Amino acid sequence: MTVVTFDGERARDLDRRHVFHSWSAQALVDPLPIASAEGATFTDHEGRRYLDFASQLVNVNIGYQHPKLVAAIQEQAATLCTVGPGFANDARSEAARLIAELAPGDLNRVFFTNGGAEATENALRMARLATGRHKVLAAYRSYHGATAGAITATGDPRRWANEPGVPGVVHYWGPYLYRSAFHATTPEEETERALQHLRDLIMVEGAGTVAAIILETVVGTNGVLVPPPGYLAGVRAICDEYGIVMIADEVMAGFGRAGEWFAVDHWGVTPDLITFAKGVNSGYVPLGGVIINDAIAVAFQRRAYPGGLTYSGHPLACASAVASIGIFREEGVIEHARALGTDVIGPELAKIAERHPSVGEVRGLGVFWAVELVRDRATREPLVPFNATGADAAPMAAFTAACRERGLWPFTHFNRTHVVPPCTIGERDLRDGLAILDEALTVADRYCTG
Amino acid sequence: MTVVTFDGERARDLDRRHVFHSWSAQALVDPLPIASAEGATFTDHEGRRYLDFASQLVNVNIGYQHPKLVAAIQEQAATLCTVGPGFANDARSEAARLIAELAPGDLNRVFFTNGGAEATENALRMARLATGRHKVLAAYRSYHGATAGAITATGDPRRWANEPGVPGVVHYWGPYLYRSAFHATTPEEETERALQHLRDLIMVEGAGTVAAIILETVVGTNGVLVPPPGYLAGVRAICDEYGIVMIADEVMAGFGRAGEWFAVDHWGVTPDLITFAKGVNSGYVPLGGVIINDAIAVAFQRRAYPGGLTYSGHPLACASAVASIGIFREEGVIEHARALGTDVIGPELAKIAERHPSVGEVRGLGVFWAVELVRDRATREPLVPFNATGADAAPMAAFTAACRERGLWPFTHFNRTHVVPPCTIGERDLRDGLAILDEALTVADRYCTG
Repeated sequence: MTVVTFDGERARDLDRRHVFHSWSAQALVDPLPIASAEGATFTDHEGRRYLDFASQLVNVNIGYQHPKLVAAIQEQAATLCTVGPGFANDARSEAARLIAELAPGDLNRVFFTNGGAEATENALRMARLATGRHKVLAAYRSYHGATAGAITATGDPRRWANEPGVPGVVHYWGPYLYRSAFHATTPEEETERALQHLRDLIMVEGAGTVAAIILETVVGTNGVLVPPPGYLAGVRAICDEYGIVMIADEVMAGFGRAGEWFAVDHWGVTPDLITFAKGVNSGYVPLGGVIINDAIAVAFQRRAYPGGLTYSGHPLACASAVASIGIFREEGVIEHARALGTDVIGPELAKIAERHPSVGEVRGLGVFWAVELVRDRATREPLVPFNATGADAAPMAAFTAACRERGLWPFTHFNRTHVVPPCTIGERDLRDGLAILDEALTVADRYCTG
Repeated sequence: MTVVTFDGERARDLDRRHVFHSWSAQALVDPLPIASAEGATFTDHEGRRYLDFASQLVNVNIGYQHPKLVAAIQEQAATLCTVGPGFANDARSEAARLIAELAPGDLNRVFFTNGGAEATENALRMARLATGRHKVLAAYRSYHGATAGAITATGDPRRWANEPGVPGVVHYWGPYLYRSAFHATTPEEETERALQHLRDLIMVEGAGTVAAIILETVVGTNGVLVPPPGYLAGVRAICDEYGIVMIADEVMAGFGRAGEWFAVDHWGVTPDLITFAKGVNSGYVPLGGVIINDAIAVAFQRRAYPGGLTYSGHPLACASAVASIGIFREEGVIEHARALGTDVIGPELAKIAERHPSVGEVRGLGVFWAVELVRDRATREPLVPFNATGADAAPMAAFTAACRERGLWPFTHFNRTHVVPPCTIGERDLRDGLAILDEALTVADRYCTG
């Protein structure tokens, strides 16, 4: 039972015969076979090395194959791989203790899942049952996962083919000053108007029907939309006023991505529930969960919580979370991620923006940045249309190809490229990657009309 | 970063402070801390050893800590823990190849998930989009997972607190001769009438609106309901006649549990989609998926499949599936499981049934058996009411306690105990466990009124 190793052709051939891929037209998939990975880079079977500015799906926060994390998984595997959710287990208890310790306020309990979608599902369930209300307000330009409840909450086109979804989800507009839904021109105005929009929506939907407001603390795939000052505190105040559960989706934003353990720490706001996955253990073993405050936990003290899963609190997954949190602390990963944002990525992207007419805006914090590309800086017309595919998306495809040719694997979505490398990336690698991005943007510039 | 090891009190104390448990009133949970496990047994922190007749949640088919499976996980961890679903990877390609090879007919492609619930979600999505229809027929007395779509399909009380669910799910009655919904008295009659019921339901719901019929090949937690001869073939024929997708949920029944690779093999029936999890790698790493036939895969050749997840085809999980399938083949685990059913469990449970007035029926195959307990054999009144809790469930609690005192960890649900040990259990251990069950049933007998 040794490790399976193929050449690239065999891996690709079997993949094309037998693997059904996420979010794809299967005939159009041509997946690059990856042979190995280390730190911030992965390598294909031809020995071609890519610097990963995407952290796979923005999950490999600790970098690839961290030796201490690998060792911890190996040790736990030798000790106890699996135990059902009805038992107690050292690794699970310690992972829960550590996560509760890191979480703000009285978020003291953890319900473990296998990933982010199930975390959303359970957070929505808890909010609905704890409040006895059924509606959920969720943002446009959001992603919360692809199971029926999570995809209904999602506010991007991945929802469309999955409708009708579960009843009771109402979408609202979040703050996004560069393309303000509220015709705002300053961050203060955006905050004020976005909060007024939420209040208006609650008024017409009926406050007594609203169980939860769910939001990504920093919107991830849909644009690294950093909330303007006062917005999160304003949402917290609205939730307090109407008895609504505030759910912060930190599946992407948490565990170092935003330069904090949790992105909410940046604004000192304490939600009622936090969902997490990805960065908690960098996806070395599938893991996610919901961190629960005391008020909501109390609602299920004497009343059975009607949700669960076979692998809730999986020992191997929990042991990898314990080790990952320990490594983050020992190696100062949070501080490193924060400093990379303020000292390197922010300043360098600002310079890049000056040089390229295709760059409409750069925004972000920690190792969580977006470069929004436009045809015309004055009109802010996106470089490619919303949800473009095929020929319409050609400018972004050309940019992506230009990066890959130069050994950089970029994250792209719609008319943006995100700078989301592992939180552990070294400064030299980061600067090398940004230099490639700089070069590749000349390809995007060619499509500018402004 | 060594393995976390506590004494039992510390593990339990942290659990009670910080772990939120599945399907439970949190104040009433008192989880036994497990320190270690091997083969068919696990051990608590006081050194008390339990023979596991539940395989945790009927998932540890290969037994605990199989050394070759542990080694394979350790090796893959050293090679490559994680890679996103957009790439190809040796472990994923090989796992998909092996699973497609084992699956019947032209079920040639695998969409990997983290567990069974997500497998259900995606199977339903595929069926709806491939047919362009929206309704799903799902059985009462079934369990398909706890995400919004999966729990709506579920036909047991775990659905109740999660309603309303997704639109378009209609529940039907499956065959269960001992408590026939159709007043049948023979297996032939039960098959004929259950199929007529399905046809009638399709008639009144409108065949052109029905995307899928989903069923557990052998109903698991809700009773090890083995379909009578001709039933599955009859469902297949109905699906063919009306262009309905047949989804076999083999999350519990597959990978050895029923003494076959897939339970459908027992009847030679080929569904359009098979969902799996649990036994595929015995839950050593969270993994599940959908096996897809060519007709449904073709529907997503040029049209994007609108579903996905970060850990789809997770290398560590896939490597553990590859190793587990290899071990099953090398060690003849399927054949062993089948023989235990026909040579040991079946005959022994038949003898036990003779000795105990509380045993109404025994049924099963492979290492997948139910002992249905009654107050009165003539009336078939269940030993405890449907979905009983608290004092109403006292007879089952007394039975469970009697087993645990004797070192046997039983699986119980409603008025049944299931005999679902690891597929690799040795004959001596199995006979020892059955002897304990025999003794403990004298406790159940005391509640008999017949």
